[in-house]
Amino acid sequence: MTNVNRWIQPQVVILRLGHRLPRDIRVTTHVCLTARALGANRVIVTDTHDKQLVETINHVTARFGGDFTVETGRHWRPCIAEWKRSGGKVIHLTAYGIPLPKIISRIRDSKADNLVIVGAEKVPGGIFRLADWNVAVTNQPISEVSALGIFLDWLFDHNRLESKFPGARIRIIPTERGKRVVRI
Amino acid sequence: MTNVNRWIQPQVVILRLGHRLPRDIRVTTHVCLTARALGANRVIVTDTHDKQLVETINHVTARFGGDFTVETGRHWRPCIAEWKRSGGKVIHLTAYGIPLPKIISRIRDSKADNLVIVGAEKVPGGIFRLADWNVAVTNQPISEVSALGIFLDWLFDHNRLESKFPGARIRIIPTERGKRVVRI
Repeated sequence: MTNVNRWIQPQVVILRLGHRLPRDIRVTTHVCLTARALGANRVIVTDTHDKQLVETINHVTARFGGDFTVETGRHWRPCIAEWKRSGGKVIHLTAYGIPLPKIISRIRDSKADNLVIVGAEKVPGGIFRLADWNVAVTNQPISEVSALGIFLDWLFDHNRLESKFPGARIRIIPTERGKRVVRI
Repeated sequence: MTNVNRWIQPQVVILRLGHRLPRDIRVTTHVCLTARALGANRVIVTDTHDKQLVETINHVTARFGGDFTVETGRHWRPCIAEWKRSGGKVIHLTAYGIPLPKIISRIRDSKADNLVIVGAEKVPGGIFRLADWNVAVTNQPISEVSALGIFLDWLFDHNRLESKFPGARIRIIPTERGKRVVRI
């Protein structure tokens, strides 16, 4: 887990827990698209290898740009241990945690690389203890997809929604009605 | 589509297009949970009746509070027509639209009831024309679940993440480690 850009800007990596086939295909795809669109660097999907997911997301990145990557089939425990050893912080998104508005400035101020954990159904209790911060995007039952999107938007201070992605072959031109796309 | 609270505060209703069984069960559930947690009043799911979905969300609302409702099996065209006739505005979330930061103040300033349309796969072209605003939560491929969550967070000026829901039987007590829940 080398962080080439470590000294340029903190890395944001998503750790997606409990991916199961076929149950989670679509939701994990939504997690990956959200992570990429909102400026994360990478998603690591635990437990299950999913070549199709990797191909789907790589295809989006090849067309729409950026250097976002997805990796599947890792185990969460060594993943988190390695991350912490290299000085990164671990954030776990959970409805049971501290409300996002109360904790976001501490997370931003740490300037560390962030591993953001999002679960599927039941999350192992160990995650709550290993996380530096258990963060609630509302203390209500919510989707991990929207929780991740809102968290990243706050982490980046609400200023990543108009980012340009380098190396794009396709770019959407914002328009009031209809669809405008340029091929580069 | 009467708006009882119309003069108290604008209603926010989500119109979820193209719900198909079993494909969309989980993603539409995520849409509904996101809508409820972020302060919307209601979700209307088009095309398909889905009793199970309604029961799942009603069960969450019965336990965690609020008066959020879900309705399924409507047709989108009369739904939008009726909304516009009653003076409400229509927002369509699409990667092809105007970036959220550029348009949110116009939406907030309108003080109208808002119908927020989120699609599944392909959205009928008519939606782009009928919408008052086509809004992009990033001009990138993204999830409708996170797009909705981020949109609602912006619409409510980032101040609904700690809302209390009236009539809750269960309340989560935010905590740094683990899970704390009180039964009321």
